[in-house]
Amino acid sequence: MPSKRTRATAFAPATVANVAVGFDILGFALDKIGDEITVERLNDRPKGSPIIIEEITGSEIPLPLDAKLNVATAGLLELLDDQNLHYGFRVWIKKGIPIASGMGGSAASAVGALVAANSLLDSPLSKKELLKYAMIGEALASGTGHADNIAPCLYGGLTLVRETNPLDILSIPVPKRIVCVLVHPHLRLETRKSRAALSSEITLKQHVKQSANFGAFLVGCFQENLELIALSLKDILIEPQRASLIQGFTAAKEAALKAGALGASISGSGPSVFAWVSSKETGQKVARALTDSFQSSGTYADAWISPINLEGAKLLL
Amino acid sequence: MPSKRTRATAFAPATVANVAVGFDILGFALDKIGDEITVERLNDRPKGSPIIIEEITGSEIPLPLDAKLNVATAGLLELLDDQNLHYGFRVWIKKGIPIASGMGGSAASAVGALVAANSLLDSPLSKKELLKYAMIGEALASGTGHADNIAPCLYGGLTLVRETNPLDILSIPVPKRIVCVLVHPHLRLETRKSRAALSSEITLKQHVKQSANFGAFLVGCFQENLELIALSLKDILIEPQRASLIQGFTAAKEAALKAGALGASISGSGPSVFAWVSSKETGQKVARALTDSFQSSGTYADAWISPINLEGAKLLL
Repeated sequence: MPSKRTRATAFAPATVANVAVGFDILGFALDKIGDEITVERLNDRPKGSPIIIEEITGSEIPLPLDAKLNVATAGLLELLDDQNLHYGFRVWIKKGIPIASGMGGSAASAVGALVAANSLLDSPLSKKELLKYAMIGEALASGTGHADNIAPCLYGGLTLVRETNPLDILSIPVPKRIVCVLVHPHLRLETRKSRAALSSEITLKQHVKQSANFGAFLVGCFQENLELIALSLKDILIEPQRASLIQGFTAAKEAALKAGALGASISGSGPSVFAWVSSKETGQKVARALTDSFQSSGTYADAWISPINLEGAKLLL
Repeated sequence: MPSKRTRATAFAPATVANVAVGFDILGFALDKIGDEITVERLNDRPKGSPIIIEEITGSEIPLPLDAKLNVATAGLLELLDDQNLHYGFRVWIKKGIPIASGMGGSAASAVGALVAANSLLDSPLSKKELLKYAMIGEALASGTGHADNIAPCLYGGLTLVRETNPLDILSIPVPKRIVCVLVHPHLRLETRKSRAALSSEITLKQHVKQSANFGAFLVGCFQENLELIALSLKDILIEPQRASLIQGFTAAKEAALKAGALGASISGSGPSVFAWVSSKETGQKVARALTDSFQSSGTYADAWISPINLEGAKLLL
């Protein structure tokens, strides 16, 4: 019998939440860009914290080394307690997702640590159970427990959070030709600040209009109707309230649409911007249009062109 | 060559708008119950009004005989002008849908008259063009131009109004097993009054919750997932504001769910109540539960059990 592994590394992808039409409930995962979390199962439970954060790399700003305060490990701590495990973990965090970029970095760290650790448990948990623990890390980061980044990070694809208590996640098909462009202007926007910019009330008219677009977008996804996706991938509700927080956003979005994007909006709580396009070639044009536009307003921006990641977080061999 | 017909009768079905999760944008059509409109093309344009309403039957209250003021003919008048037709019409209206019942009676009259008249035109218009004229009659009835009854009445099935200006209607698949129960308590509730009961503002939280249910309901329809439909066919937004306008509603709805309905809510602006069930047998139980419940609160109620009507308004031979 092979000896049981005691160490695992998981890759957890960047994710785009809200997706213009589904504030707090829609999200999808990207390929290649993400966090890598390595977890080692210890023989026993260390004194003090049962989780030791050994190293954090790839972050421009210092992140908490206290496991209770780090989004990667807060949920894992709860899992240890809940499952009455007699051992602890040593954790290495390699951030591939910029901090406070609106690209689902906290969700990726939380999900990555759980997926890696889960593979080392004597009785691994289901994704649904992991989701619950990942929410704890996410709540630490955003002040509220939303699953719109966590769900696509863990499951992959485009996901809809039907209910958060108890969690219920639905998978929405994405037309095969869809490619995502994600652009990160080098501005930092805290999720809390971006949430605080939102009015807690909206008009019934806005609700009806946003719902019509949301519904039409889902129909477009199910029917692989790119024209309908282009007509409906529009945020009339949240984006207008946040646009001014992201210097150069409005011009950049216009440039993306002009370059052939089906739709473009703020990724999560920003400042990153995503666009959906129907081919890699258009993706390159749209990525250039977005970065050029931000550059001309004085902001350097990184760009990624990625298919929708259908598998979500995974163990690396 | 057969002589061209000069007279036609159309059946236009009752419709359920809002459908719990899609205020102002979702609706579906029923079988059998509806209005029948007969239209005769005249040789020339009569002096005065080019449309003569010859007879109105089936209505408990007097309806306008002036074509400009009658929902069945207001749109048809506009069509005559727009298309520069040199003739007029004589119209017979047979109401099968109770007035102010929330069953889409105005929409049915407007659509029925247009479908019948259209078959008598030298160059018949497309359904999309008819939709525009039908909206005129609907606006006369409700004070606002909503297409959530008009669209399913004309096209059949479950429809989503993506946009009203210009109109764009999407068709949503309905799982084959779905049967609708529609119950009309003998209370009259004017659309205008029912609309006036609604707050023009909602909270962002309500929007998120209602959207999650709306999205999940659409996923349930596309995936023929009745369990998901049951979980999501819930109106947390509009129904609570209107429930008190319909005496006995809350108890009746609870009775319907207890009798096996997947979901139940107010039909359009009420007072009628609809439920979705997964078989005719359950439909009978739910219909009885609803009518018994209304009866026990002192209100007589009619019930219909109907599959979703997939063809919409049609000519009768």
